[in-house]
Amino acid sequence: MIKTAIVGFGNLGRGALKAVFSSGDMECAGIFTRRAPEKIEAPEGVKVYHISELKNFKGKLDVLLLCGGSATDLPATTAEYLKDFNTVDSFDTHAKIPEYFARLDKVAKENGTLAAISIGWDPGLFSLTRMLFGAVLPDGKDYTFWGKGVSQGHSDAIRRIKGVKNGKQYTIPKEEALAAVRSGACPELTARQKHLRECFVVAEEGADKAEIEREIVTMPNYFDEYDTIVHFIDEETFIRDHSGLAHGGFVLRTGKTSDEAKHILELSIKLDSNPEFTGSVLAAYARAVARLAKEGRTGALTVFDIPVKYLSPLSDEQLRKTLL
Amino acid sequence: MIKTAIVGFGNLGRGALKAVFSSGDMECAGIFTRRAPEKIEAPEGVKVYHISELKNFKGKLDVLLLCGGSATDLPATTAEYLKDFNTVDSFDTHAKIPEYFARLDKVAKENGTLAAISIGWDPGLFSLTRMLFGAVLPDGKDYTFWGKGVSQGHSDAIRRIKGVKNGKQYTIPKEEALAAVRSGACPELTARQKHLRECFVVAEEGADKAEIEREIVTMPNYFDEYDTIVHFIDEETFIRDHSGLAHGGFVLRTGKTSDEAKHILELSIKLDSNPEFTGSVLAAYARAVARLAKEGRTGALTVFDIPVKYLSPLSDEQLRKTLL
Repeated sequence: MIKTAIVGFGNLGRGALKAVFSSGDMECAGIFTRRAPEKIEAPEGVKVYHISELKNFKGKLDVLLLCGGSATDLPATTAEYLKDFNTVDSFDTHAKIPEYFARLDKVAKENGTLAAISIGWDPGLFSLTRMLFGAVLPDGKDYTFWGKGVSQGHSDAIRRIKGVKNGKQYTIPKEEALAAVRSGACPELTARQKHLRECFVVAEEGADKAEIEREIVTMPNYFDEYDTIVHFIDEETFIRDHSGLAHGGFVLRTGKTSDEAKHILELSIKLDSNPEFTGSVLAAYARAVARLAKEGRTGALTVFDIPVKYLSPLSDEQLRKTLL
Repeated sequence: MIKTAIVGFGNLGRGALKAVFSSGDMECAGIFTRRAPEKIEAPEGVKVYHISELKNFKGKLDVLLLCGGSATDLPATTAEYLKDFNTVDSFDTHAKIPEYFARLDKVAKENGTLAAISIGWDPGLFSLTRMLFGAVLPDGKDYTFWGKGVSQGHSDAIRRIKGVKNGKQYTIPKEEALAAVRSGACPELTARQKHLRECFVVAEEGADKAEIEREIVTMPNYFDEYDTIVHFIDEETFIRDHSGLAHGGFVLRTGKTSDEAKHILELSIKLDSNPEFTGSVLAAYARAVARLAKEGRTGALTVFDIPVKYLSPLSDEQLRKTLL
């Protein structure tokens, strides 16, 4: 059995724990949290510890599933954990990945540990697919569409506006853009042409709704380059209809191997629960980290570096026999 | 530059050569054929040799792209080539892969060479996807659909019937089956429910068409378990409309991470030319073989064993920066 621990117990941590539980070859030695452990509602039989106790588990765990956020949590803590443990994380700030990778690679190599970074679906499965599609169809163009699903960053941006009590933003891929890509026409698409942004807002009593809407649709970087639809709804409706965590997306590549031969490659995923699926991907890569560490690998790795066979509990022979 | 050679120059060999040509980091030292070299129409500047001359190139090539067939050619020759060269092949007889792998793994390890076997889209990209989908969504069920495209085996079977001058069989995935899978209903589907078989037949003059049709639709293993449509057409129409090499298919997995969260993962590919795309995949894996061999790897490998970064001409840093 692979000995894991979950660090951070929000939506992602709960998803990762479910995946470890149902795996058959992994067990969870505990949940580690910065909050008061007695306030965490954990499934029966799972111990909850304060994060300060983690160091006492050195040598007793194969891999930590880091389930903190990318904005401040992972950048501040992963390097520290890596001094004593192997880790897998879902660091998803695309622009900062090279720096994050370099820093963790150094720490991990110095300490003889192993880190799989930026694991999930994007970055993660989508990255792997973009790379694979590009390698097998080099003369082409790729497109990534996200949604329909909630963008946490855009929802946060709405909630920071004066007079907004609550808000949620859905990123929606535009059907006509998807159709144009699937036709093989290799279109150049602007941000506005690819995605629609739909916002559901609960305004505070007496707030100026017209002004809130104006602030949303003109917000630089977040909304100004998109078609944005704003709906004002009451809190009850918000809680009833907009508490879901569904998400999804598409990676497409169209290209040609000669003037006569065009090809279209497409990956699509549709998820009822983004954090549960991401947690499940984290668990599969935790298995890979545990196995690669046992083989003596150290440093930082991404989805590009890890042979997919390490994700599966099946033996190489079984994989070749049943799935090749 | 990676030094390659193409062994076998049918449709697949021509596709592989195009891919090597357009790669930028690979060159083709020659085409090797069992036929008379002077009868091969090769692009300008590409040398054509009789296969008996291949042994003179020992030590001068990084990898051979084996473009022979799986029925008799690859099983008879790959082990022999592996004594002197690294290879990549598209061996696609699924049931015989374990035996083929074991035999080549032994020869390659004894001779310090490296073989990537069963490379293409199925086996190949589809296998990798089935494995990946299964690992990240373990509580689920996967489905592979092929088509619309030509099945060489079924076309051959038709042409062996008395009175048939020419014939082609298209495997067509049934839309209603695809829709049922995409709904997340996890249906159990029979062969008949998944695929339709459509045949275009040129009969010899005076042949008994009703008897030919009866023989086709009742043929064990090939057609009896399917809905089969037979069209009789004249030779001119056959050549005009049925010389294409388009193909494609779908890998789907539906499953759940909890009772509340279902997920749907789907890969689909649509190819104007099956051999050109397969040749392009072969070339990408040839790059991986050349690089892994340089690192000292020996033995047989499949898509499950090879980190995807080896397929790309980009550096690890570039991949992380641009595609992760």
